[in-house]
Amino acid sequence: MVSLVGKSNSGKTTLMEKLLPEFVRRGYKVGTIKHHSHAGFDIDVEGKDSWRHKKAGARQVIIAAPDKIALVRDADREASVGELAAEFGRGLDLILTEGYKREVFPKIEVFRKGVHESLLCGPGDGLIALATDADVDAGVPRFGLDDARGIVDLVESTLLKGKTP
Amino acid sequence: MVSLVGKSNSGKTTLMEKLLPEFVRRGYKVGTIKHHSHAGFDIDVEGKDSWRHKKAGARQVIIAAPDKIALVRDADREASVGELAAEFGRGLDLILTEGYKREVFPKIEVFRKGVHESLLCGPGDGLIALATDADVDAGVPRFGLDDARGIVDLVESTLLKGKTP
Repeated sequence: MVSLVGKSNSGKTTLMEKLLPEFVRRGYKVGTIKHHSHAGFDIDVEGKDSWRHKKAGARQVIIAAPDKIALVRDADREASVGELAAEFGRGLDLILTEGYKREVFPKIEVFRKGVHESLLCGPGDGLIALATDADVDAGVPRFGLDDARGIVDLVESTLLKGKTP
Repeated sequence: MVSLVGKSNSGKTTLMEKLLPEFVRRGYKVGTIKHHSHAGFDIDVEGKDSWRHKKAGARQVIIAAPDKIALVRDADREASVGELAAEFGRGLDLILTEGYKREVFPKIEVFRKGVHESLLCGPGDGLIALATDADVDAGVPRFGLDDARGIVDLVESTLLKGKTP
């Protein structure tokens, strides 16, 4: 598990979009978890039958097609990313998360100059790399915002050792 | 697990919408599984970041909010409903499915006169009830299309014994 963190609008999703194809190219099966801090996001599923189930009181609805599974579940409390990984991580080599800055797994901070003044992460936050266009030093390897290959090399050599893609 | 079956346009989802609130009223936690027989349905999630993850190559994306979890996963093959229940059924008292007519669990057939000529299920198909406006006999208890209370009574007394809602 590796999390992309950064203040708002720093470019976490954009970096995610660059890293994912590079992991896939190397043969890894990657899942992502996006943290949504407020309640009430909506999901709209073609066909809508499953939506009718949900509205009628189903606690969880699943749509199962030959090539895809979708699930929506009501939660009484916010699941930790560890719980999500344990329940849903089967068959994946790596889980990349976005927005879990308080959890204790390795993190890559995205930092763009001109957007924010200072880094989000400090010592003890589990930072393993910076993706940035700024000349900042956090005591960890620094990569350009576009350097998917460099970042994936780092993750592969440090965290994915022994995983056969 | 109980499946609502019936030929197309027989009213499975409409019955589902009547049964779910009755189960919920009695305190049961119910999940549903909707079978989608063709590939390529679309899911549209507000905010779209998770969609960007999926398009960039993530095999699975999860959105986790305080009150809800959503998941979309690519599948190499169609999961059986038993596999889906085993993986995702934790914490539920009952799973109602729609459209799994070939699986071997108890079934309620929805049959409307004027829409189809004959029943979908025959002997050996695991039928436990009919929901119908027609005067047909399948050798199982028959309920009106609106009789959620009667159908839930049957499911409760035969399949949910010992489950404390």
